[in-house]
Amino acid sequence: MTLAKYFPILTWGRDYNRTALSNDLVAALIVTIMLIPQSLAYALLAGLPPEAGLYASIVPIMLYAVFGTSRALAVGPVAVVSLMTAAALSNIAEQGTMGYAVAALSLAALSGVMLLAMGLFRLGFVANFLSHPVIAGFITASGIIIAASQLKHILGIDAQGHNLLELIVSIGEHLSQTNWITALIGILATGFLFWVRKGLKPLLTKLGVGSTLTGVLVKTGPVAVVVATTAAVWVFGLADQGVNIVGEVPQSLPPLTLPSFSPDLLGQLLLPAFLISIIGFVESISVAQTLAAKKRQRIDPDQELIGLGAANIGASLTGGFPVTGGFSRSVVNFDAGAETPAAGAFTAIGLAIAALALTPLIYFLPKATLAATIIVAVLSLVDFSVLKRSWNYSKADFAAVLATILMTLALGVEVGVSAGVGLSILLHLYKSSKPHIAEVGQVPGTEHYRNVLRHDVITDPSIVTLRVDESLYFANARYLEDKIQNRVAKDKNIRHVILQCAAVNEVDLSALESLEAINERLREMGVQLHLSEVKGPVMDRLKRAHFLEDMTGKVFLSQFMAVKTLQAIPNNGTLNPSEIL
Amino acid sequence: MTLAKYFPILTWGRDYNRTALSNDLVAALIVTIMLIPQSLAYALLAGLPPEAGLYASIVPIMLYAVFGTSRALAVGPVAVVSLMTAAALSNIAEQGTMGYAVAALSLAALSGVMLLAMGLFRLGFVANFLSHPVIAGFITASGIIIAASQLKHILGIDAQGHNLLELIVSIGEHLSQTNWITALIGILATGFLFWVRKGLKPLLTKLGVGSTLTGVLVKTGPVAVVVATTAAVWVFGLADQGVNIVGEVPQSLPPLTLPSFSPDLLGQLLLPAFLISIIGFVESISVAQTLAAKKRQRIDPDQELIGLGAANIGASLTGGFPVTGGFSRSVVNFDAGAETPAAGAFTAIGLAIAALALTPLIYFLPKATLAATIIVAVLSLVDFSVLKRSWNYSKADFAAVLATILMTLALGVEVGVSAGVGLSILLHLYKSSKPHIAEVGQVPGTEHYRNVLRHDVITDPSIVTLRVDESLYFANARYLEDKIQNRVAKDKNIRHVILQCAAVNEVDLSALESLEAINERLREMGVQLHLSEVKGPVMDRLKRAHFLEDMTGKVFLSQFMAVKTLQAIPNNGTLNPSEIL
Repeated sequence: MTLAKYFPILTWGRDYNRTALSNDLVAALIVTIMLIPQSLAYALLAGLPPEAGLYASIVPIMLYAVFGTSRALAVGPVAVVSLMTAAALSNIAEQGTMGYAVAALSLAALSGVMLLAMGLFRLGFVANFLSHPVIAGFITASGIIIAASQLKHILGIDAQGHNLLELIVSIGEHLSQTNWITALIGILATGFLFWVRKGLKPLLTKLGVGSTLTGVLVKTGPVAVVVATTAAVWVFGLADQGVNIVGEVPQSLPPLTLPSFSPDLLGQLLLPAFLISIIGFVESISVAQTLAAKKRQRIDPDQELIGLGAANIGASLTGGFPVTGGFSRSVVNFDAGAETPAAGAFTAIGLAIAALALTPLIYFLPKATLAATIIVAVLSLVDFSVLKRSWNYSKADFAAVLATILMTLALGVEVGVSAGVGLSILLHLYKSSKPHIAEVGQVPGTEHYRNVLRHDVITDPSIVTLRVDESLYFANARYLEDKIQNRVAKDKNIRHVILQCAAVNEVDLSALESLEAINERLREMGVQLHLSEVKGPVMDRLKRAHFLEDMTGKVFLSQFMAVKTLQAIPNNGTLNPSEIL
Repeated sequence: MTLAKYFPILTWGRDYNRTALSNDLVAALIVTIMLIPQSLAYALLAGLPPEAGLYASIVPIMLYAVFGTSRALAVGPVAVVSLMTAAALSNIAEQGTMGYAVAALSLAALSGVMLLAMGLFRLGFVANFLSHPVIAGFITASGIIIAASQLKHILGIDAQGHNLLELIVSIGEHLSQTNWITALIGILATGFLFWVRKGLKPLLTKLGVGSTLTGVLVKTGPVAVVVATTAAVWVFGLADQGVNIVGEVPQSLPPLTLPSFSPDLLGQLLLPAFLISIIGFVESISVAQTLAAKKRQRIDPDQELIGLGAANIGASLTGGFPVTGGFSRSVVNFDAGAETPAAGAFTAIGLAIAALALTPLIYFLPKATLAATIIVAVLSLVDFSVLKRSWNYSKADFAAVLATILMTLALGVEVGVSAGVGLSILLHLYKSSKPHIAEVGQVPGTEHYRNVLRHDVITDPSIVTLRVDESLYFANARYLEDKIQNRVAKDKNIRHVILQCAAVNEVDLSALESLEAINERLREMGVQLHLSEVKGPVMDRLKRAHFLEDMTGKVFLSQFMAVKTLQAIPNNGTLNPSEIL
């Protein structure tokens, strides 16, 4: 039982049959073809040699197949995490050095350990603090930064930077170095890939090509560009004209590697590793849940953390860098008919064969081509519609998106995402610190009580009922004190205050002490405090704290009963505890 | 109108009469006598020369009288803020230097500007994030640190430190330097003051002394000790025996001073000034509200911020240091019959006279006596009962208290309070990120729906109703997705999911997108999503977002109507939008 929980492979492996095998093999073939250029490109984006991208796609996929709960998720390097890797390592080592590669391994190891720990201790809820608008803003801004960072490859120049400003300045400074042949290849490749995305599908459909074939043809676009530009460089000897090529890539299975255990290095990588873990997890679980729902399958978020943790530790031991479940590749895997994680394992075998046998073929592959595939892939992530959507729906969400986008573009990925998370938490606390508190009265002829400002209701000058539309906790406890004091201090007719608590899901110790203070202050003013419609769990809490004994008034099951009882008291207007029904 | 809002003095000043005047004068006299030793002592605690304590009690009180809304609050140096001042300045300058005094002025100025800004921009809610347990833990731990920091004066040794560990170690190292005459004075003074607090009152009452006179006699305890020990040092020439005395104090009205505007210094003081502002404000407003309630008066928190801001700016311009409304002095002021802030102004005049005329009298006052008054005052703040109280009431609150106390004792006031605030926010978010979600069924014979686990209720195998007891926002949006997916994926009979939303006070953009995802995933499984009992404001939001059009099911006014309608649908089990009632 427990073993099957931690090794989902035992569950699906038991029922594995020939149909599933053939479906998984077909899916694996398609995904492998798609992944070869993508892996190389994301390694480039992370600042690592191209083979690291292949290595990061082999063992991690296999480990995820053992530990993951999603049937269709494809794990490997993805755009945003690769960008975050480059940003994290930029202050630590020079790209192309041994130190940089080791730092990448350490980042993957640290992120893997964090994910594993979060999974084992069921701390996945931490990822919930990334609100959807913050994620959307972050992905959009990251997409822009990634595209800008690839312009240097398209133009064949040196340029650096980890935010949009640095990149623009650096590209501007080096623009005169532009290699026009490289630029021609880059621009043609980018244009072609955009056309494949936008123009090819309608064209093929118009020509009467079946939709399955159309889908396959569209997906082979990147491979076609890779083949065409590699051939062009080889045939015309363009490498001698200054076109940057991938060059020699070792023909090898993933090497065994060890991350660094230097406390200094790990300390520097702690925050980036945490952010990479959280963002990678959020991206991965969203895809996994979307795909699982289509087949009424279940995803276990805590087990997913374990699966991704294992994958990252695997990456760190086999020459990779941080990985996660990717959106586009998982969708392709699912659409191609993958039934179990075995499809991932077969993909890994396909990529291992590629790493062993096919690397000489990409010797002449221009880096501009890889940059073009990245640019086209990430620009599809850029979506400013979230700004409009959040503006219409909620200004607080809009502020969080805007802050995330601007901070990410201006100051980089780590500051951007932290600012977004911080701001959304602050805004949430701010909103709940000033909860909606309505004064209510009786709707004539009913037992319902509604807002006096919105409805024609019956009120009693000696009784004030306030309905609090929020749990009571430290952030709003004092606000309630102010509200009640202000309401009561100005009206000397008031003898009773009733708090209607139907929407109060919690009363923490601060709020309890505020209630005690309110009770005490009302007592000084000769006013009794009553509660109505208190929820069971809240009532249990209050009983433990002896507040109910000190309260001047009593707790009523319903608001209607409260008012009826209080109105029945003779003229002096206070309820004697012994008179309680 | 607006002028009176920002200058409360215009409101109470208009009705000022002879009765109020005589009451205020009496209260001022009593508070002045009490404040003289207290001001000197807190200056010592803050690491400043004794006269700074007097100066910090003159102009600030006057300014608060103009701008403050509390009738009885007495503003000046208080224990916790003085400790925080010493902690903030410890890394910046050496005690006793000019730089230290200027830094104290700058801290007061910065804190004053922050308070003023928070008041003008109505940002007082920031103080709400200090939960009651955190404040209680912080005050207790601060009291212990303050008492420990005064031991060096009691023993006549050099010792330093800004947390309990440092202090204990430092006192241990210097213990051999103990001056036994100083120690005798210190211990006798402390013992006598404790006896005044605990033993004198019962004794006087037993002797038949009236309660008013008893109160006055108890309050003059510190003055008596000051007079007795000063006389002893003078008569026996103890200063020559190594007893540390206050020494020469300038006979002067508060000097005009200017804080430093060095950006470096202000940058270092930014965080401490913020913490001092918040903690000072919380202490002050709690006292003000308690006292106001006794006379059915109103306190305006935002105007209080302005009043305290003005007081601190005043302190920075007249040789003082950060001030706030103090608990004990305000209670004395109130009990002595103060009717308006004019009592504060008269106190200020009294203290000005003391600063001008009485300072030669305290030349021989031993510092050990001032330390004794501080120790006795702050030990009454130490109260570990909050630990037991919070343990019984809520483990989350207990964790926050414990963390605050331990971190404050071990690492100092700034780390302590920040840790407490951070932890209570995290725990609150954690709790609301896993909200109570109950599956409900119909209570037989009623229209009520209750938890299936707690009640014998009627359910329908094709309909699942979930009641969410929390607002839906980013921290719990994904949790709801998981819950629904897990519930529906394992039960193929389900055709309808109803979310009962009576306790949902908000749906933010993240939660909206989760609802959209839930709707989409349920659609894939052939299940319809419905909502019931959605609150008005939430409904308005949802309408703006077009979610309702995309929803596969519909929104019902009540849970009962929802189930009745869905059960009435013929066998295929889905509700056609056109069939909607």
